[in-house]
Amino acid sequence: MNTKMIRYILGKMLGVEAVLLLLPASVALIYQEFSGVFFLVPAAILCVVYLLTGVKRPENRTIYGKEGMIIVAGAWILWSLFGALPFSLSGSIPNYVDAVFETVSGFTTTGSTILTDIEALPKGMLFWRSFTHWVGGMGVLVFVMVLTTLDKKSSMHLMRAEVPGPEKDKLVPKSSSTARILYGMYLGMTAIEVILLMFGGMNLYDSLIFSFGTAGTGGFANYAASVGHFNSVYIDSVITIFMILFGVNFNLYFFLLLGDRKAVWKNEELRAYLLIIFAAATAITLNISSQYPNPLKAFRYAIFQVASVITTTGYATADYTVWPMFSQCVLLFLMVIGACASSTGGGAKVARVLMVLKCIKREIMQLVHPKAVSIIRVNGKKVGPDILRSLYIYMMAYMGLIMGSVLLVSLDNMDFGVTFSSVLTTVNNVGPGIGAVGPNGSFADFSPLSKLIFCCDMLAGRLEIFPFLMLFTVSAWNRKF
Amino acid sequence: MNTKMIRYILGKMLGVEAVLLLLPASVALIYQEFSGVFFLVPAAILCVVYLLTGVKRPENRTIYGKEGMIIVAGAWILWSLFGALPFSLSGSIPNYVDAVFETVSGFTTTGSTILTDIEALPKGMLFWRSFTHWVGGMGVLVFVMVLTTLDKKSSMHLMRAEVPGPEKDKLVPKSSSTARILYGMYLGMTAIEVILLMFGGMNLYDSLIFSFGTAGTGGFANYAASVGHFNSVYIDSVITIFMILFGVNFNLYFFLLLGDRKAVWKNEELRAYLLIIFAAATAITLNISSQYPNPLKAFRYAIFQVASVITTTGYATADYTVWPMFSQCVLLFLMVIGACASSTGGGAKVARVLMVLKCIKREIMQLVHPKAVSIIRVNGKKVGPDILRSLYIYMMAYMGLIMGSVLLVSLDNMDFGVTFSSVLTTVNNVGPGIGAVGPNGSFADFSPLSKLIFCCDMLAGRLEIFPFLMLFTVSAWNRKF
Repeated sequence: MNTKMIRYILGKMLGVEAVLLLLPASVALIYQEFSGVFFLVPAAILCVVYLLTGVKRPENRTIYGKEGMIIVAGAWILWSLFGALPFSLSGSIPNYVDAVFETVSGFTTTGSTILTDIEALPKGMLFWRSFTHWVGGMGVLVFVMVLTTLDKKSSMHLMRAEVPGPEKDKLVPKSSSTARILYGMYLGMTAIEVILLMFGGMNLYDSLIFSFGTAGTGGFANYAASVGHFNSVYIDSVITIFMILFGVNFNLYFFLLLGDRKAVWKNEELRAYLLIIFAAATAITLNISSQYPNPLKAFRYAIFQVASVITTTGYATADYTVWPMFSQCVLLFLMVIGACASSTGGGAKVARVLMVLKCIKREIMQLVHPKAVSIIRVNGKKVGPDILRSLYIYMMAYMGLIMGSVLLVSLDNMDFGVTFSSVLTTVNNVGPGIGAVGPNGSFADFSPLSKLIFCCDMLAGRLEIFPFLMLFTVSAWNRKF
Repeated sequence: MNTKMIRYILGKMLGVEAVLLLLPASVALIYQEFSGVFFLVPAAILCVVYLLTGVKRPENRTIYGKEGMIIVAGAWILWSLFGALPFSLSGSIPNYVDAVFETVSGFTTTGSTILTDIEALPKGMLFWRSFTHWVGGMGVLVFVMVLTTLDKKSSMHLMRAEVPGPEKDKLVPKSSSTARILYGMYLGMTAIEVILLMFGGMNLYDSLIFSFGTAGTGGFANYAASVGHFNSVYIDSVITIFMILFGVNFNLYFFLLLGDRKAVWKNEELRAYLLIIFAAATAITLNISSQYPNPLKAFRYAIFQVASVITTTGYATADYTVWPMFSQCVLLFLMVIGACASSTGGGAKVARVLMVLKCIKREIMQLVHPKAVSIIRVNGKKVGPDILRSLYIYMMAYMGLIMGSVLLVSLDNMDFGVTFSSVLTTVNNVGPGIGAVGPNGSFADFSPLSKLIFCCDMLAGRLEIFPFLMLFTVSAWNRKF
């Protein structure tokens, strides 16, 4: 175990966070908010930490998968703990546990909130809150890799641990140059959304807030009514489309840049993803049509909520807790499915769901024709036994995480729908649940224990469980290996 | 595909059901109930079906796994469809869909009911209702094998499809002689329970009803208050102990008969099963203690409900829907865990849960020490990759079944807790859920569509999904293979 290298990289990372904190501080300055100084205090602390640990490169710079996972999990936790300080110090979120919840929710692009009066916060604080989405969406470590340099092999281990999806595509492990291309596209798409939103009458500040939330598939808004605040078909449409776009595997955009449109069209996951969105939106439209003046209006709200939930963004234009239970259940299952692999979205990922369905189909076929040999293919590529095994284990650990969390959260004695959906929405990094944690609700009423469990769920969900579990495995820290 | 043999065995099976129907008819005769004639009508029909299809043995008597699964799934469905006739014809349950629900719930040992006034039914009908538990507990096909003779190989394929658990123990496939031993033990244990209950002041009829329900881990009672009707510590204790006993792997009783106490003590699943019961009962006792005059009383109700739910029996001595949400969630998870493999209980089975936990542990260990090779063992025996693969697929299909069913049942627009727990309790063959489908509730208010879905869930749960799925796979019926 290369603890020196772990300390070095984590130190570097915290230095980056110090720089990031200057951005909301500037926003506060523009709006002449005194609370801006509370960004500078943690930035100073982080600077000191960086100077102590992140400057001198250790001699042995080799790290492996294990170190990669520990760095990733450690980085996310430390960023959240320090990132929560401005909220807490400024009194915007006086309780530190609440502030940590909000920051974890931000970086993991969940978008669940403990705030009951969002609009009361200073603009600088709200900017930081939404900016964490944007940074977390692409991955905090990918971000660091863009800004710093690590050797190829080390970068690979870090990216493997952080980029979501059942299989790391060839594109991803090519280290920091790839990271720059990815972030470039991410920045470009965010910029386009900002401009389009401003055409819809939003001011620059609001359009940044909502673009950060969309790009990171996060969901924090600066208005209590979320996107519903604007009540504009144009803004709804722009955000719907961009939510769907940010839920797509980013490697496909890379292929598009290279002019390989065939690879995009042939992508099975993309087709399944669009099909699920369309099917779910249609089913919900039919189910809620009686509550709206015309089917078109019902479809407008259905498609927005569907796109918001499957991409695990969590924005809302309608309070779906008053929709019939069927529509709510459809949304709950979209939470579990989640977006595409290697996107900014959470959840189990469409690719995994596809693989599971194919495995079940194969199993039935093998029972029917025991001699038939069948190979599972996704996107035309054979899925090997190792990937299947880790897929199964991931799904089991995922179920276990949900069950264990529901059990602990149930100690708060909330209604079952609230207990279950609050866990589901945090594990899948969506944001709102059903009932009291619906789009108009908040997580404020949970006990500190539950809030900590939600923090763990959000982190475990964002990091796809194993890096997070590993951090708490005693033998991972054993020096012998 | 040997369709002649399928028809022949199914015909034989229906003949056996004709004989079984004479039992409740006799009970009705004893109590001088006119409704007894309604057992004779379906018995006569079944007799004719038997004479037409189940007498002449086909020349080609070879069947394989595929035929085995189709026979098993077909047998359970046909027995339920015919077994529902007495309820329907006599007007005890006028609606045929409701009657089928009740019968499927009986044979699959679920114990969910659509009846709102159980005590209004004639004694003959209630006897038949509970007797289906007893027959279904050990498996309707095992029952037929006891009474008829099939060659060894065919029996093996039938038992493989019907006996629950991740791995068919060596004992099981030894065909009809083994089946006789199993049924002998089953009968013996039931008889002991009947006698012990009569010592507690129950009359013969009641003690038969409750022993059938316990032995089959079913849960049908002839009183609205279930076991709570007697309000006796002695009866509670006897039923608690017998529920736990019937949730144990029956092969262990066989080992006990052979004097091999070591094999029993060393059984990992048994120890885990007892540990879970103890831990859950303790946790619930602490959680509900404020609702009861003393901790002992709280423990009495906690252990009964825990034993009832983990063994998937579904009897109740307390209305746990008024307990705190934590206790209800513990019970919901016990439903998922279920009893031991090769017992009369349902659920995922403790052995599967153990294997899953071991797989997750191994995955973490392999991430930490990539070079370490570790083998998964349960009960000291190595678990091979084929068993693990079918375990994973089973768990996935199980999740998929629950999700799909929740979605369809949610069309009834019930509360989420009711929707979710009604699916969970039927898939796992438990009986009651939480909220409106709690121990004092009923499934009467669901739509016919939901009732049919519950029927499918109960059958799929009892047959561990795949035989049931196979029945609906078109290519299984393709003659080419």
